[in-house]
This record gives sequence, structure tokens and C-alpha cells, in this order.
Amino acid sequence: MTPPEVRIIGVRGIPMVQAGDDLAKLIREAAQAQETPLEAGDVIVVTQRVVSKAEGRVVPLDDFEPTPFAREWAARTGKDARQIEAVLRESVRVVRQARGVLITETKHGFICANAGVDASNVGGDDLVSLLPEDPDGSCRILRDAIRERTGLEVAVVMTDTFGRPWREGQTNIAIGLAGMRPLHSYEGVADLDGRELRVTMPCPADEIAAAAGLVMEKLAAIPVAIVRGFPYEAGEGSAREIVRPFERDLFP
Amino acid sequence: MTPPEVRIIGVRGIPMVQAGDDLAKLIREAAQAQETPLEAGDVIVVTQRVVSKAEGRVVPLDDFEPTPFAREWAARTGKDARQIEAVLRESVRVVRQARGVLITETKHGFICANAGVDASNVGGDDLVSLLPEDPDGSCRILRDAIRERTGLEVAVVMTDTFGRPWREGQTNIAIGLAGMRPLHSYEGVADLDGRELRVTMPCPADEIAAAAGLVMEKLAAIPVAIVRGFPYEAGEGSAREIVRPFERDLFP
Repeated sequence: MTPPEVRIIGVRGIPMVQAGDDLAKLIREAAQAQETPLEAGDVIVVTQRVVSKAEGRVVPLDDFEPTPFAREWAARTGKDARQIEAVLRESVRVVRQARGVLITETKHGFICANAGVDASNVGGDDLVSLLPEDPDGSCRILRDAIRERTGLEVAVVMTDTFGRPWREGQTNIAIGLAGMRPLHSYEGVADLDGRELRVTMPCPADEIAAAAGLVMEKLAAIPVAIVRGFPYEAGEGSAREIVRPFERDLFP
Repeated sequence: MTPPEVRIIGVRGIPMVQAGDDLAKLIREAAQAQETPLEAGDVIVVTQRVVSKAEGRVVPLDDFEPTPFAREWAARTGKDARQIEAVLRESVRVVRQARGVLITETKHGFICANAGVDASNVGGDDLVSLLPEDPDGSCRILRDAIRERTGLEVAVVMTDTFGRPWREGQTNIAIGLAGMRPLHSYEGVADLDGRELRVTMPCPADEIAAAAGLVMEKLAAIPVAIVRGFPYEAGEGSAREIVRPFERDLFP
């Protein structure tokens, strides 16, 4: 019996993406050029950054006229008040604002530092990158474009790098997806001893994102990975399914 | 230029592990039997469960005489008071106790539901599996045993499946390791635009654990995976480096 194997393949050679670029085309061509062409059943993992760039979500800091609230926090933390303002405008709730850290709930429901607003690797000093407005929608567009051009049925996962409570360091997680179910329920299924498995619901979407993180090093300029061989559950899916409702969370 | 590729290979055919079993031998033989023998530079990923079994950390529930505190919570939640008692004895701090969930800090410093005490897949109705006492130490023993038998230098990561705040579902994370650094610091390094990357410290140990989760499905009885091709930073390392100090955490 063949052992289960999942391959995580970094896609090199994607040029610096500009607003309006056709990502599906760039990904397909880069994968072909490195002799790892896309295949049916692949999960195409893309960083939010490259999608944000293609969607024109890299914007001048001067678009954000800071409120006094943003100015005060910027002064306390030594940051750019326009950038704090951008974070607040991308947010619907401040979760923690302490020790120089601003953790908010984004419009999409994700809880992370700085609402995904980032000034690194955006191509200029006075620019910031914002998260895509509808990450699932961006993934669907990419999935559909790949299907149209190649006839291949693939899944798409968009990732960002989030910190987490209690643990140092960041990991890649899923903030958008298309073509797969993000969670896998074992409800009602028996374990190896015949006992019902309880409270067990792996999140393959986040495990795929983290796996892709292994080949998407920030400095290697690899914004895309192919996850091949993982038997994901096909379906429409949404990264919003991964967001725990506020009412049910124990760490508001 | 060859694209970066990481392979995640599930290791089948490891028998039901018993206390005292030689895990290094079982892993090596199973990997050979499926024609994916261990190689230098591999990360050998093992679930805590299989290590706990080998270390005799599967114990009778009757070892835990419940306190009134444990009885009260068991009564409120419909759980086994002995199991609640086991969770409390494995813990040093209750982080949240609400809505049927008991989230604690374990003796190792990990924050998770039920302190890693688990009654699934342990081989009997009145047994529970506890986390290894010293997960890093267990990984070092395994790494040393593999080195002795094969001459190969590998890293070892021990995983468990943790939930997380704000997101549904669980992912595999690292609770012990040997032979690699768990975190990768970009401090002082310039981004693609020449700006210093700030606050960026990926946690490859957790990304490796999550990646292994893709082939370690609970029901497939695959407690070991080989992560091959990832250029980890060799070094002694400890999963305790991933634990954020209490004083610095924003979600105590």
C-alpha cells in the first residue's frame, strides 16, 4: 500500500505583481516554467499579499487621515499615525490594545494584530497593503479562472501570517478559500477502540496554510505554493466557517 | 533552479504501541517497510499519543480520586469526575472554565483544553492518556536512538492537536522537539524593498506539526510522519521557546 504523501511545492518566478495582473495566468505559467504544472486536485495556496497587490489593495498611507485616537496610540508606540488609522478603518472591534500591540477584529471577522495592514514588501515607503475585501471571493475568482483556462478542478486557499495567544512566533493560516471544506467533522465517528470521538474537528484549511508556510519564506519571494496529494473534501466552503462566533468565544 | 519542495510522508504499519516499546525501532522499520526509509535532514513527527503509550503514560482513571471541585465540574458538564481530576492534576493554572470547557496551563506551560488528557484511542474504557512528562526529553531520546542505529542526523517534533481562540477546529502543533530551532527570527533582516522586517518570527516547528497533521488523520492510525526537504535550522531547541511567558501574554 502506498504511504499517504502530501507534497508542498513552492512556485518560483512569479513577477512582482501589479494591480490588475492576471494571477491565474501568472501562477499557471510559473508552475509550468518550473516543470510542476498544476494538476486536478491540487490546492493552490496564495498569500494575501499577492492577491491584495493584484486587486489594487496597496494604497498610499496618505489616504488615512488619522483621528486623535490613532494619533495618541501612534505617539505612545512610536508608530505612523496613518498606519494606525488604516488598521482602525479595517477593523470592527478592538480586542486588545496594550504593550504596543493593537489586536482587532477585521471586517471579515479575523482576529489578528494590525488587521492585516502591512508596510513590508509592498513596493514603497509610503504604501500599505490591506487584506482583500472578500478573500473567499478572490479565491473563487482564481479557482474559476484556473478551471476555465485548464479544465482542472482545484481548490484555492489564501493565507496570512498570524500570531496567536500563548505561543511565540507566527504561522500561516487560511483567510479565504474556494473549492474545499475548511473543517472536517468526526462527529458520531468511532475511534480505534470503538468509542465516539468527541470535540474533534480538524481544520485542514489551516493545516494546508501552515504547510505552505514551509516553502513560502518571506524573503524567498515565493507567494504561491501547490499542495498536492491531500484528499480535501470538495465543496464551496468559506473561511468564515473557521471564524468562531463572538458569542461562543472564551477569549473576547 | 529546482523549486523548493517539502514532502509530508505518513508512516503506516506502526503496531499498537505498548508501554516500553522501542519507538525508534518501530518507526525505522515501518518507514523501511513502506520504502520510505529515514534520511538525514528528515524531521520525524510523532503524535504525543504514541509517545505517551510507549512511556506508560496511559493510566487507569481510577488512579484519580476526584476532589469536590472536580466532582462539581463533572456534575455540571456531565463528564467523568476522575477525568476532570486527571486534568487538574496535570495543570498548574485554570485559564478558562466556562461553557463546558476547561482550559488550563499544563505543567509544561502549554495552554489547551483538558491538559492533554484524552480518553480516545487509548485502548480501553477506563484509561486516559496523559502528555509525556518531558516532551523535549522524549524527542531527544528518539533523535539519539535514531542517530545511534542509523548514523542519521534528524530532527524530531512531537505534536498534539490543540484548539485555539477565535477559530473553530483544531490543528496539530509542536509540544516537544529535538535537533531543530522552533522559531526563525528575521530581526534586522531587510524585506524585498530594503525595509527592516519587524515583528516577524515564523514558527516552523508549528508549521511542520500542522503539515504532518495532513497525513496523520486520527482514524488512519498513522501516528508518525516524515517531513522531508525542509531546511530547518539545526540546534538543540526546545518547545518551551514557543511558550510565551505569562507576563507577556495579552490573553491570560
